[in-house]
Amino acid sequence: QSTLNFGDSPHTRVNILTGEKVLVSPHRSKRPWQGQVEDLPGDDRPAYDPKCYLCPTNKRADGDINPDYKESFVFVNDFSALLKDTSQQEFNEDELFIAETEKGICKVIAFTPRHDLTLPEMEQSAIKAVVDLWQKEFEELSKVEWIRYIQIFENKGAIMGCSNPHPHGQIWSQNHLPVEIQKECVQQQKYFDRYQRTLLADYIKAELKKEERIIDENDSFVSLVPFWAAWPYEAMIVSKRAVQNIAGFDEKEKEDLAAILKLLTTRYDNLFKTSFPYSAGMHQAPVNNGDHPEWHWHMHFYPPLLRSATVKKFMVGYEMLANPQRDITPEVAAEQLRNCATKHYKSK
Amino acid sequence: QSTLNFGDSPHTRVNILTGEKVLVSPHRSKRPWQGQVEDLPGDDRPAYDPKCYLCPTNKRADGDINPDYKESFVFVNDFSALLKDTSQQEFNEDELFIAETEKGICKVIAFTPRHDLTLPEMEQSAIKAVVDLWQKEFEELSKVEWIRYIQIFENKGAIMGCSNPHPHGQIWSQNHLPVEIQKECVQQQKYFDRYQRTLLADYIKAELKKEERIIDENDSFVSLVPFWAAWPYEAMIVSKRAVQNIAGFDEKEKEDLAAILKLLTTRYDNLFKTSFPYSAGMHQAPVNNGDHPEWHWHMHFYPPLLRSATVKKFMVGYEMLANPQRDITPEVAAEQLRNCATKHYKSK
Ligand SMILES: O=P(O)(O)O[C@H]1O[C@H](CO)[C@@H](O)[C@H](O)[C@H]1O
Ligand SMILES: O=P(O)(O)O[C@H]1O[C@H](CO)[C@@H](O)[C@H](O)[C@H]1O
Repeated sequence: QSTLNFGDSPHTRVNILTGEKVLVSPHRSKRPWQGQVEDLPGDDRPAYDPKCYLCPTNKRADGDINPDYKESFVFVNDFSALLKDTSQQEFNEDELFIAETEKGICKVIAFTPRHDLTLPEMEQSAIKAVVDLWQKEFEELSKVEWIRYIQIFENKGAIMGCSNPHPHGQIWSQNHLPVEIQKECVQQQKYFDRYQRTLLADYIKAELKKEERIIDENDSFVSLVPFWAAWPYEAMIVSKRAVQNIAGFDEKEKEDLAAILKLLTTRYDNLFKTSFPYSAGMHQAPVNNGDHPEWHWHMHFYPPLLRSATVKKFMVGYEMLANPQRDITPEVAAEQLRNCATKHYKSK
Repeated sequence: QSTLNFGDSPHTRVNILTGEKVLVSPHRSKRPWQGQVEDLPGDDRPAYDPKCYLCPTNKRADGDINPDYKESFVFVNDFSALLKDTSQQEFNEDELFIAETEKGICKVIAFTPRHDLTLPEMEQSAIKAVVDLWQKEFEELSKVEWIRYIQIFENKGAIMGCSNPHPHGQIWSQNHLPVEIQKECVQQQKYFDRYQRTLLADYIKAELKKEERIIDENDSFVSLVPFWAAWPYEAMIVSKRAVQNIAGFDEKEKEDLAAILKLLTTRYDNLFKTSFPYSAGMHQAPVNNGDHPEWHWHMHFYPPLLRSATVKKFMVGYEMLANPQRDITPEVAAEQLRNCATKHYKSK
């Protein structure tokens, strides 16, 4: 049997990238909601906001003045969680208290000078410019010999802790591997050792055949709701070629990445006719740490919304203490996203 | 050196219960906040709400009428995520699509007939009655031979996905071990095999000596901010005796558990003069699965608030994709909680 068929039965699915499972309760999607409803922050922003620290020519927290940039703009985070001058120290008392210092560089990337836009509302060529900048930043940070991992991500929407609506993302790089990356290293290595192919190459090949969870596809990328998605509308963009990191993409692939990013984020906005909040980010091979043929570039999207622009999924009690849990199935979510228009609901 | 001393340096600490680390950025706690601020739901509730499905004598979703209960009351969740009649099925396609059905029983426990109270506002004797009921329910569910794990927990506050302010908790039991429990099994087993003592017995012994992260202590329990806490005011209650599960507690221990629960939740409420939201729950040994001398009963508290009743910590982009991160140190958090009054701010 080539398709999962447990009917409406509660079941768990394994996330092959982490080795961890998620609990799916399909029968439960009709549960009424009487709990917290989110505020929708007003969506009428000016193209330029004199008080925004990301708009061109404005002053930032550290006193610097932003240039009058025309595409995208990158700078070191004024409130970096990691610092580049931290000296290496370790602490281990009886295997009970284990700690070590962590060194890093945190950057902010404004995606466009336009305060009022978001990724899906930007021209594809402007998104391509962001992809170019991600690649350039990745290449430069990889030259810092003590950096082992570079996390490129975006928090979109106030509900995702984003404190400035000006479209922007972040890059945190550091001298050890973060836990989620460690898990994906183990799982991808295991598979590669056994088959000499990347885990995700085989996975997307199988998904493209099934077509159940695919959202979009172009020459170089596929977007889909992973079989093991935990968030209701979680999605993943995977490159068709087994490329280790963003530095490996050629011009055509960067064009195609911009195109599929625009498509996925447009579908998201159209789903509930709202600027769809999410945290998204790329997972890629460690740097300055040998060759990683087992690593396959991909990008995760973790959106919190469940059934409307104001009702989100709460990953709380059972989820925090025991196991991530979802109600609607990944297959239903993928179908809903596929049915969304690819023209943004706000565009004329 | 018996105390961690990295100054204000960013560092990681290892959670010995899961083997995973957390990133601590102590220098960053002065970061200003311009992002989302939470709504404070009104806190003036009647002692009885005719529309609440948990109040005595009211009708529930399935048509049942609640009894006129006087202490606490338990029933099967009308919207259970797990069902007891699910038949066992497995699915594994090429190690890429792995799933199996999950069977379980989900219950709801109303802590008191009083709609207007919360745990810290209840009499200690009423909290003791809840502890008694937890124990009784645990014992009964353990008699169901296919159940392997019983998760007792509470989501408190709308911000934690709690959809009814009537004080209540939940019990989800199931026929496989959830992921967080699997991690704690591995870590506790490893330690026990090596030392023939439980990991947490040695850990709390060391913490009681250091006194830096302890919040409260009585004859049978200690509450503390763990060395590896990820949430700003995360706390843990640990039994002094290495008891495998709540069934093992005697009368005196149950009294002491009620006492330390009242203390911790009162300090929480007093911290920001608000009904402090959290998800909390017990971790204990698997059931119907042999003896587990390595397991040491404990209870985790994961509260989302960061710096006031309306500003929470967002575990988003970097945290979801890479590694949990915190700003204020566990030591500062413990000190603040120790400095909170033990008399509830609302009591006269
Ligand atoms: O069971 P409830 O209270 O309806 O729902 C709440 O707790 C559950 C268990 O942690 C979560 O899955 C839900 O997202 C949350 O809203
Ligand atoms: O860096 P920002 O935008 O100030 O902060 C946001 O993203 C960070 C990285 O995911 C999180 O640690 C913060 O909790 C969140 O509010």
